[in-house]
Amino acid sequence: MIDQHCHSITLADLDDSAFASLLTESDRPPAPGISPFDSSLGLAVRRWCPPALGLPAHAPMADYLARRRELGPAEAARRLLAATGISHCLVDTGLTIAAGHPLLPLPDLASLSGAQVREVVRLESIAEPVDTSPADWAHAVESALRTATASAVAVKSVLAYRHGLAIPAERPSPPEVAHAAATHRPGRRLTDPVLLRQLLWTAVDLGLPIQLHTGFGDPDLTLHRADPSLLTDFIRAVEPTATPLVLLHTYPYHRQAAWLAQSFPHVYADLGLTLSYTGPRAATVLGEMLELTPFAKLLFSTDAYGLPELYTVGAAQYRHALHRTLTTWQSDGACTAADATRIAGLVSTENSRRLYGL
Amino acid sequence: MIDQHCHSITLADLDDSAFASLLTESDRPPAPGISPFDSSLGLAVRRWCPPALGLPAHAPMADYLARRRELGPAEAARRLLAATGISHCLVDTGLTIAAGHPLLPLPDLASLSGAQVREVVRLESIAEPVDTSPADWAHAVESALRTATASAVAVKSVLAYRHGLAIPAERPSPPEVAHAAATHRPGRRLTDPVLLRQLLWTAVDLGLPIQLHTGFGDPDLTLHRADPSLLTDFIRAVEPTATPLVLLHTYPYHRQAAWLAQSFPHVYADLGLTLSYTGPRAATVLGEMLELTPFAKLLFSTDAYGLPELYTVGAAQYRHALHRTLTTWQSDGACTAADATRIAGLVSTENSRRLYGL
Amino acid sequence: MIDQHCHSITLADLDDSAFASLLTESDRPPAPGISPFDSSLGLAVRRWCPPALGLPAHAPMADYLARRRELGPAEAARRLLAATGISHCLVDTGLTIAAGHPLLPLPDLASLSGAQVREVVRLESIAEPVDTSPADWAHAVESALRTATASAVAVKSVLAYRHGLAIPAERPSPPEVAHAAATHRPGRRLTDPVLLRQLLWTAVDLGLPIQLHTGFGDPDLTLHRADPSLLTDFIRAVEPTATPLVLLHTYPYHRQAAWLAQSFPHVYADLGLTLSYTGPRAATVLGEMLELTPFAKLLFSTDAYGLPELYTVGAAQYRHALHRTLTTWQSDGACTAADATRIAGLVSTENSRRLYGL
Repeated sequence: MIDQHCHSITLADLDDSAFASLLTESDRPPAPGISPFDSSLGLAVRRWCPPALGLPAHAPMADYLARRRELGPAEAARRLLAATGISHCLVDTGLTIAAGHPLLPLPDLASLSGAQVREVVRLESIAEPVDTSPADWAHAVESALRTATASAVAVKSVLAYRHGLAIPAERPSPPEVAHAAATHRPGRRLTDPVLLRQLLWTAVDLGLPIQLHTGFGDPDLTLHRADPSLLTDFIRAVEPTATPLVLLHTYPYHRQAAWLAQSFPHVYADLGLTLSYTGPRAATVLGEMLELTPFAKLLFSTDAYGLPELYTVGAAQYRHALHRTLTTWQSDGACTAADATRIAGLVSTENSRRLYGL
Repeated sequence: MIDQHCHSITLADLDDSAFASLLTESDRPPAPGISPFDSSLGLAVRRWCPPALGLPAHAPMADYLARRRELGPAEAARRLLAATGISHCLVDTGLTIAAGHPLLPLPDLASLSGAQVREVVRLESIAEPVDTSPADWAHAVESALRTATASAVAVKSVLAYRHGLAIPAERPSPPEVAHAAATHRPGRRLTDPVLLRQLLWTAVDLGLPIQLHTGFGDPDLTLHRADPSLLTDFIRAVEPTATPLVLLHTYPYHRQAAWLAQSFPHVYADLGLTLSYTGPRAATVLGEMLELTPFAKLLFSTDAYGLPELYTVGAAQYRHALHRTLTTWQSDGACTAADATRIAGLVSTENSRRLYGL
Repeated sequence: MIDQHCHSITLADLDDSAFASLLTESDRPPAPGISPFDSSLGLAVRRWCPPALGLPAHAPMADYLARRRELGPAEAARRLLAATGISHCLVDTGLTIAAGHPLLPLPDLASLSGAQVREVVRLESIAEPVDTSPADWAHAVESALRTATASAVAVKSVLAYRHGLAIPAERPSPPEVAHAAATHRPGRRLTDPVLLRQLLWTAVDLGLPIQLHTGFGDPDLTLHRADPSLLTDFIRAVEPTATPLVLLHTYPYHRQAAWLAQSFPHVYADLGLTLSYTGPRAATVLGEMLELTPFAKLLFSTDAYGLPELYTVGAAQYRHALHRTLTTWQSDGACTAADATRIAGLVSTENSRRLYGL
């Protein structure tokens, strides 16, 4: 299986609350009496992870955390990653710490997991530190991006967090960009919509697939501004270039993303962390995504971040949800076993292989 | 069953890619390696259509297309339409070609299908060619519409494609209309929101049910601008006239449409092509629609277009989805067999009979 | 079970159409041939209520209404309420009549139901009659609210009906409030967005949980303006105060509400009348809500109003939906029986007990 969007993990010793903090999209301490373990994702962790560490499925979280500590983070991670069946990880390197701890460098993630690891370069991480004159900003960013992506398979945009997805479609003019660049301080967060558009169009020119965060994420975004339908004018403007656009996560707007993937030849979609976070409901959510998404346009990913558990859970949830969905389809007479095998192969591996040239 | 919104078909010899192009809402050639057959709709075609042509269900698409060619388009269409059980087709005549081929005239569709065929007049098709002075535009359009609808059962609006559904509710003033009409060139696409509103209000005065495209369609529309909730102010303004408004398709905003149908006495809803396009998931989508839509307000339609297969699939998907939904409700203890029969009768036939006076 | 948001009932003799008018969110007379009984809610009433009055489940509505009349409204209400298993009712006293009849005072509701009854004070009902100078409006409203909430457990906002949820986040300045107050006539509906914001911030200062209507309701609201995601900036602004915000009803935007409840420590969510109105589909809707809502953040309520039947149906639908959801999760291997018991306890009782200090 090709995990087309994920992040690295930490091998730090995490205390219980640091561990819990990586099982929610919230970056806030929970209210009194409320634990991230009491969630659909918490159930999924207790379902899939204890067996990888030699405990029964659904072991209490305290037992699981004790066992994890007993093995040590590195050995636990090795076991958890081995259980995934993932052959390739396309890693967004835009995040570098989790719960205050540095993430593993990609070669270390590769040797720990046994998977081939390829980089996805985050656009904003490259553009933000660029220190040059306003008139040169566009050129310097382009140059920095070309250097940074020399061996990358894709780029990633977090426009949804920085501005929301409702941007004008057109490439901004050089004077507009220079004018906007005059207000950007190197190293600061890039939020100017002109510079964000310029950055996207620079990526379009590069031609690598552009992964775009859409749908839910941490509280730094406003959900309705992350509806991928808001990207439609931009999608239309990019279409003549044939640069692929990959709509990440997309929930709860995944039916909108599915329509975009059906409508526009260069648009692809995934569910990412959605299948982990929705726990017992993942099969239904995957089914909703398959209503309109062409089977050759849906991509598997875990969007794992910080914890090796999120690789284990992401892969297991996807596999279980896909199996349940396709089994239900067959028992309802909606498709054959051969169809099911073909669909599973496309989504798990072939679509990403074709798109990223792996 | 009364198919309350559909289009005519072509009897041209279609090559494989022309056939495939009518199984997606995209009007673009697919990206390399990607076929519209690999989709939920593709599965539904292979499920329901081969048996109508003497092949087993789920026959490979290549076998199906070969058999279709062997029979010839007219004989294939006759067999496919005979399998539908549709007694009445309300045909939107606003589309006249499919995959480059002319659609059958309505009398030919009637004799081929054995169904009663009635016309739904597309508002924009009537208004666009009107060639008159700006001051006379409103009157000339009204007159053209009265002539065109002499034997029609309803009109249809594609406001969702031309502007999106967020329009001011009020009838525009005659000077506004004359001013806007001065910019419209006869025969061109009507996109001016003042003229589109005037056209809708002309239709309201006519009193025939107005079918409005809402929700997904081809890439000419922007999905979030087709959310039927955006019509709420217009719906309120029309309410005193009692002219019925029928929200077509509605997906993925069908729960919003359902609320409108419950809230306003003159609003009705359907799912149209949604049940075909969502293939194995149709029963769930229909269930979502039945959450809030009063059972006497939901209307069956196929929204078939171009291919007789889309009639076969639309009718079979609807029947299968309704059966599964109502069977599940009974086994859960939520309703009786008599309730299920009554609901099926309302949605399949009685609601359209009452609304359109058939 | 703690019903964290409901309304009082009427003991008037209701004719059939008055009874029916309380089984739809529409406040309009139904179109000819269309009855609110033919709906998912109608099925739920016929499923759960006849047994409470000694008839078989699914008895025809006419038989049920005859039996109800035979017993008399008070005895029928006593039996219907006894069937709910509700121990506490948090009653929004902002509505005072139903189908033209006065609602029972809270002490009478308490003695009829045997439940503990606590008051939820509707903000707009307190602020609208305040008759003072514009400069004093803010102060007078605060004072009225303190008096009105002396023994209340929460307040309730109907901002969704009065303006929609898209308001600026910040507390308005005193001059802005005085300026806006000059246009408000005591006793009139409060629709000025400055005054509505001032009222909300007054409630924030009070510190009681604020229940906010979001999602569907009667046709007085516009659905897309009631998407709880529109509240995000306000939610962020309130966060430092820790005043709890409870997103009521939320459907069809319940997945958005669930994300807000996961993201922000002070945000809670419920489904209210949704589980009654969606009848046979309630388990699925509840499942959707549990995808992202932390299990310690979801609250049970019936949102019953006018008819004691809506308490019976609300409690039974919730119990049945929760049971089906958790049973399905267990049979799929997604959680244990102990997990299911814990989740049910949190949502039914413990979350409200903790939040409201009961």
